[in-house]
Amino acid sequence: MLAQTPEPPYYAVIFTSIRTDVTEGYGDTADRMVELAHGQPGFLGVESARQAVGITVSYWASLEAIRHWKQDAEHRLAQQTGREKWYESYKVRICKVERDYGFNHL
Amino acid sequence: MLAQTPEPPYYAVIFTSIRTDVTEGYGDTADRMVELAHGQPGFLGVESARQAVGITVSYWASLEAIRHWKQDAEHRLAQQTGREKWYESYKVRICKVERDYGFNHL
Repeated sequence: MLAQTPEPPYYAVIFTSIRTDVTEGYGDTADRMVELAHGQPGFLGVESARQAVGITVSYWASLEAIRHWKQDAEHRLAQQTGREKWYESYKVRICKVERDYGFNHL
Repeated sequence: MLAQTPEPPYYAVIFTSIRTDVTEGYGDTADRMVELAHGQPGFLGVESARQAVGITVSYWASLEAIRHWKQDAEHRLAQQTGREKWYESYKVRICKVERDYGFNHL
């Protein structure tokens, strides 16, 4: 299911990553972070897929909402564990969505 | 491999999609579009993964570079065939990358 977002402008966080081979705890924590994000102020939606590279794009109403989510205590612990165990490398890109359009097959 | 992009600001196109079950021609065209994008003016990189949802993020030096790529003749034909055969739905989001940071395990 594609994320249903409002009219731009809004914000996107593009999180791309390469995993290590450590699987312990990863799936549960990833699921929990998605669940937790849904309850954050200003959360608009999320899309995620992983093959050689993992890509998670989350959508937010404001930069303040993104800052608030980054500083969430449980999220910070997950970020730290991610650097220690689960990720070989990652990149976070904070973006302003200026325009969007779509297609739906009838 | 994560895309190696310059210091912000630069631009990102987030293309998210749900596929139909039509596979004919899809893989070859997808590969060709990535190849073709690499030769476009202002192209900076691309990351892609597909599970339930497909996510392709391409990075560009300017909005003009994005417009130019959207209008490429071979790309336009692929877009049209995509709507007719390969995609149930898709969304394109044009974004300005304002900030980025990363992590690399040593």
